[in-house]
Amino acid sequence: MSSRPVIGVTMGDPAGIGPELCLRVTRDQQILEVCSPVVFGDAGVLERVAQVLGWPGAERVVSLAEWETGGVSVDLPSVVDCALLEAAAIEKGRVQPACGRAAYGYIEAAIRSALDGQLAAVVTAPINKEALKAGGINYPGHTEIFQALTGSGGVCMMLTSDEITVSMVTTHIGLMQVGDHLSPNRIAEVIRLTAEALGRMRGRPARLAVCGLNPHAGEHGLFGRGEEERVIVPGIEQANASGIDVHGPFPPDTIFVPVYRRRYDAVVCMYHDQGHIPFKMLAFDTGVNITLGSRVIRTSVDHGTAFDIAWTGKADPRSLIQAMRWAVRLAGG
Amino acid sequence: MSSRPVIGVTMGDPAGIGPELCLRVTRDQQILEVCSPVVFGDAGVLERVAQVLGWPGAERVVSLAEWETGGVSVDLPSVVDCALLEAAAIEKGRVQPACGRAAYGYIEAAIRSALDGQLAAVVTAPINKEALKAGGINYPGHTEIFQALTGSGGVCMMLTSDEITVSMVTTHIGLMQVGDHLSPNRIAEVIRLTAEALGRMRGRPARLAVCGLNPHAGEHGLFGRGEEERVIVPGIEQANASGIDVHGPFPPDTIFVPVYRRRYDAVVCMYHDQGHIPFKMLAFDTGVNITLGSRVIRTSVDHGTAFDIAWTGKADPRSLIQAMRWAVRLAGG
Repeated sequence: MSSRPVIGVTMGDPAGIGPELCLRVTRDQQILEVCSPVVFGDAGVLERVAQVLGWPGAERVVSLAEWETGGVSVDLPSVVDCALLEAAAIEKGRVQPACGRAAYGYIEAAIRSALDGQLAAVVTAPINKEALKAGGINYPGHTEIFQALTGSGGVCMMLTSDEITVSMVTTHIGLMQVGDHLSPNRIAEVIRLTAEALGRMRGRPARLAVCGLNPHAGEHGLFGRGEEERVIVPGIEQANASGIDVHGPFPPDTIFVPVYRRRYDAVVCMYHDQGHIPFKMLAFDTGVNITLGSRVIRTSVDHGTAFDIAWTGKADPRSLIQAMRWAVRLAGG
Repeated sequence: MSSRPVIGVTMGDPAGIGPELCLRVTRDQQILEVCSPVVFGDAGVLERVAQVLGWPGAERVVSLAEWETGGVSVDLPSVVDCALLEAAAIEKGRVQPACGRAAYGYIEAAIRSALDGQLAAVVTAPINKEALKAGGINYPGHTEIFQALTGSGGVCMMLTSDEITVSMVTTHIGLMQVGDHLSPNRIAEVIRLTAEALGRMRGRPARLAVCGLNPHAGEHGLFGRGEEERVIVPGIEQANASGIDVHGPFPPDTIFVPVYRRRYDAVVCMYHDQGHIPFKMLAFDTGVNITLGSRVIRTSVDHGTAFDIAWTGKADPRSLIQAMRWAVRLAGG
């Protein structure tokens, strides 16, 4: 048995760029030096994509049943064949219910393995939320799937890169519904999860900033319904009281200006685009998405299924490679 | 009389960095080469700030009444003394009702002069919205004051810089109230105003992108209440039908990634921070705010009153100088 951590990699939506990224990962020397990757997907799809691209296929394929009985060596990068699809029946670059169901199945199998102790962490390739829904899977994203299937308490999404780190109080909901999902307890929870993760990652207490919700952080109640005073300030105070070095709420358009951003290890954001707009501007294709608070360590690429370039070999693997490295780091490897 | 355009500069909140910026502008050789600046403010405040800083005071002061009778030469940079404040009674860096009322008075006087044909454009130094409100002035910002006092139809805020240009469908309202202010007509109007301004500025038809409202632009109705399909798409189609080259709605976190942003001359945004976050990240202290659709040409600095550094001489004048240049350009100078 290898002493490197065993990291599960879910193949994502088969019609997207996940399969080619997984083929790359099992051959990437930088990855293989630090971990033993195990891909959870459909061997038939990987085979078909490898043929389309003229790339070598998987080195070793084992069935899910075989894998779950244990004792499979991880000295070679392996593919665990969940066998959920007929590879010839799917089409690249299109939303397909069967692909949504399969993508969910790979995640389910990887989480089960992680909870059983066979994996040190799970790294996820991109899924398509429309395909999930078309396939009858009613989770809005990975973060929520990991929370539900691992039976974890409060979780949140953090995006990290060398340049910028953000975590989100709310994620995949309509913008006009954000207000209904903010509470002092939830804000304090996301601050705490962010402070814990960064403290572990950096080996020192983190210093955090928190965004307001409204323009100019409400300008003392002028814009909005006092969400800053009623909800965000009490959340920050609760976190402060537990000893976390956290400041705000700051005007959302000021805190990401370089001179202010660099004073903090991370910015806690109230909604998806408040964090994603600045993050993707600075770390597109190289960022990593981490689910904080999950009982199973999970990192992910920070991009989508890129249906327009699926199965062409053009997908940039840097985000997935970074996600693998973070998974190893968070697993203590 | 000078042949350079006469540009009014409102002094902004007297307790902020407006006075020192105005003192600089009247001495800036680059400015004086392209226009004749006329500051609308309180001569006593400018005198007091000049003394605090050890800077030279205004070269020439005229009363508002004298200015409005006409015939005042603009060969020297002038201060039009609105005489609304007792300079010794105000305190730097603090919200004061009298300062809010005075800041509004300077704007009112400058707009009146512009409508009378004495000014080619108005450039505004920053006001404090809390001070305005404390002073009984119930406008949320300059854009709305210019709309009301000039009797203009639809107006909107555009921020421009060498790197990025954004315009906003809504601005100074609570984030959770944005949905109530979106309509196909308003979106088409902001697209049209943006296309017209950029067309004039660049001498060729503009190519525009429009943001969605929700994460991933709603991901085909998965997040939000279908605002993209119901409201934004019809607005874009209306603008397209009138011959404007406009595309979207795009996921808000993708369109600002450099490779996508550079395909367009400007991005039309649904709310304040959707446009202000990326803009300030790329053009802090150098951006210019332009009110589109106003009968009086108005440009402005892109920063606030900076009460923390008021009257210290530290305020960066670049944004105001850029705003002066844009005013000259828009006035056809």
